[in-house]
Amino acid sequence: MSQPRTIALDAMGGDHGPSVVVAGAAISLERYPSLSFLFFGDQARVNAELENFPALAAKSRVIHTDTTVGMSDKPSQALRRGKGTSLWLAIEAVQKGEADVVVSAGNTGAFMAMSKLILRPMAGIERPAIAAIWPTVKAECIVLDVGANIGATARQLSDYALMGAAMARALFHVERPTIALLNVGVEEVKGDEEVRQAHAWLKSTGLPLDYRGFIEGDQIGQGAVDVVVVEGFAGNVALKTAEGTARQISEYLKAAMRRTWLSQLGAMLAAGGFRVLKEKMDPRRANGGTFLGLNGIAVKSHGGTDALGFASAVDLAYEMAESRLTTRLAADLAAFHDKLEAMTAS
Amino acid sequence: MSQPRTIALDAMGGDHGPSVVVAGAAISLERYPSLSFLFFGDQARVNAELENFPALAAKSRVIHTDTTVGMSDKPSQALRRGKGTSLWLAIEAVQKGEADVVVSAGNTGAFMAMSKLILRPMAGIERPAIAAIWPTVKAECIVLDVGANIGATARQLSDYALMGAAMARALFHVERPTIALLNVGVEEVKGDEEVRQAHAWLKSTGLPLDYRGFIEGDQIGQGAVDVVVVEGFAGNVALKTAEGTARQISEYLKAAMRRTWLSQLGAMLAAGGFRVLKEKMDPRRANGGTFLGLNGIAVKSHGGTDALGFASAVDLAYEMAESRLTTRLAADLAAFHDKLEAMTAS
Repeated sequence: MSQPRTIALDAMGGDHGPSVVVAGAAISLERYPSLSFLFFGDQARVNAELENFPALAAKSRVIHTDTTVGMSDKPSQALRRGKGTSLWLAIEAVQKGEADVVVSAGNTGAFMAMSKLILRPMAGIERPAIAAIWPTVKAECIVLDVGANIGATARQLSDYALMGAAMARALFHVERPTIALLNVGVEEVKGDEEVRQAHAWLKSTGLPLDYRGFIEGDQIGQGAVDVVVVEGFAGNVALKTAEGTARQISEYLKAAMRRTWLSQLGAMLAAGGFRVLKEKMDPRRANGGTFLGLNGIAVKSHGGTDALGFASAVDLAYEMAESRLTTRLAADLAAFHDKLEAMTAS
Repeated sequence: MSQPRTIALDAMGGDHGPSVVVAGAAISLERYPSLSFLFFGDQARVNAELENFPALAAKSRVIHTDTTVGMSDKPSQALRRGKGTSLWLAIEAVQKGEADVVVSAGNTGAFMAMSKLILRPMAGIERPAIAAIWPTVKAECIVLDVGANIGATARQLSDYALMGAAMARALFHVERPTIALLNVGVEEVKGDEEVRQAHAWLKSTGLPLDYRGFIEGDQIGQGAVDVVVVEGFAGNVALKTAEGTARQISEYLKAAMRRTWLSQLGAMLAAGGFRVLKEKMDPRRANGGTFLGLNGIAVKSHGGTDALGFASAVDLAYEMAESRLTTRLAADLAAFHDKLEAMTAS
C-alpha cells in the first residue's frame, strides 16, 4: 500500500545532468506509480527531456534555477555561494515539507554541507553519517559511515548503529536488525577506546536491535549482519577498496577468458552465467549513499551513473520516505541517549 | 648471486605446526639452495617431519623447546610467560646474529610484541609496522600498516613510507619506488591533520623515493604505486575487505557457472582460464606480513596456510635478508629525521 510521495531532484547534479536525472525518474515512476517529482534546474533543458516521458511530465513540476554547484566546488565555497542553486532549492523543498526526500548526483561534500545547514541534524545527533548499501553473498547490508566524517567517538559510533538499524528496518523489513562494529579483530580487547566503549554501550542498549559484537572486513561481503558500523575514514577506505577489488578481479577474469581459444569458446557458452555475475556485481544496483541523522532524508547518487543507476537512488529514497524512517529513528535516539545519560551518570 | 642465509623458524606456529613449517621450508630450499634453517620446537615432531626431506635435514638444525605460544594468548600474557617458547627463541636467534630473519605462522600479536621487545625498534622509530604484499593488476604493491598499531601521527606515517620504500627496493628492485598516502579523496584538503602533514613532509623529503600524493582505496589493486601508506586500523580493514570481496566474487562466479548446463559446459571448456584466475587470486602467493622498523626482519605467515603458502613467507624473508634492507633503511631514516628536525625547527 504505497502512499503518494514527492521526491525533490537536483536535475543539474552528476556528470550528465537532466538527461540521466529525468530518464532515471521515469524508470522509478514505472515501479512506483504513486510518485511525483519536483525538478530543480534549467527549465528548458529539463522540459526538453520530459518531452520523452509524457507520463512522468504529468507527475512533475519544474522549478527553474540559473545556478548550479560545480562538481569540484569546495563545500565551504558551495555554502557561501550556493543559495539559489538547483541543489540548494531541492534540499530546501524537503525542509519546507514540499518534498519527502531529496536526491542528487552532484558534489557529495557540497550536498552534505548544505543538507546539514538546511535540514539540521536531528535532536541529539552530533554528526550525520553517510550510509552505503553493500551487496553480500546473502543479499545486502548497510555500512556506515562511509566518509561523512573522519574519526568517531563512542557516542557517535553508537548513534551510527541506531541510524543504520532504522535504515535496515526501512529497507530490509526486519524488526530487530543485526548490527556489528567493524574492528581489526573480534576479541573484546581489540580496537581503540572509542570502539571498545561503543561495544560496551551497544551490548546494553535495550533497544530493538540485535548487536553481534565486532566483525572484521572480510565478513561484510559474507552478509554476517544487516548493519556494519565504522568511523568514516576506514569506512570510506573499505568501500573504495571493495569496489577496486571487484574491478581488479573482473579484469583478471576477462584476461583469463581471452587466453586460449578453448577458454574463449567456454566463456561464450557460459555467457549467461557471466551475465548473472555481472548483474550481481553491478554497482548501479546499489547506487546511492544516504545521509542519515538529519531532519529529512537525502540520497546521493554516484555522479557518473546512468538512468538505471539514478533510478536505484530514487527507489531507495522512496522506500525510506515510505517507511517514515526519521520518525522512528528520532524515538530510538531519544531513548538511547536517555539511557546513556543514566549509565554514565551512575 | 645469492649468499648463504640462515632462517629461524618457529616450528610450532600456525594451525598445523611442524608438518606445514618443515614442508614449506623444503619448498623454499629447492628455490634457494644456499639457505639453511634453524627450527625451534618439539624436537621429536620436527625430526619426524624432516625425515621426509633429507636435503632439508642436511641444511637444518633443530633446537628443542618444551613450550609454545598459544594462538589465542594475549600479547601481554605471551610476553610474561613467553621466554623459552619456540617463538621467543626463534626471534632471539636473529637478535644474537645466528639467523638473518625469523618466520612464524603463530599468534600475530604475540609475535609483534616479542619482536619489539627482543629486536627493539630501529633508532628513531616510534612504532614498527606490518607490511602486506598486495596483488595488483600490474604485479604487486606493498601496503602498510595493516594492523600493528591503531592510528598514526604524521611522523609515523612518514616513517612507514620510508620503511615501505626500503621493502619495495628489496622486493621489486626499483631504486625510486612510487609511494602514496591512502586517503578518502585525492584533493589536498582531504583527510585529517596527520595525513595532510605527512603529505606535506613526503613532498619534500629529498630522499630517493617518488611520492605521488593521495590515492583512494580503489587504486590499490590497480597498481597505482609501489607502496601504499595508511594507519593500521584502516589498513587492516582495507586488507580484510579486499580478501572478503575476492571470496565473495568467487562464490558468485561458482554459483553463476552452475546455473545452466550451457554455462556448466562453458566453465568446463574455460577451465584453463579459471585456473589462471585462481592462481592470480591465490592468497598463498602473497602470504606473509612483514614487521618493519625493527633491528631485524620478522615475517608473519598466515596461521592457516599450507606448505606452499608457508614457503612464500620464507621466500619473502630470504629476499629481504638478501637485500640488506635494514642497513639501507637505517640510513634513510636518519637522513629523513635530520631533515624533519631542520624543517620543524625553522
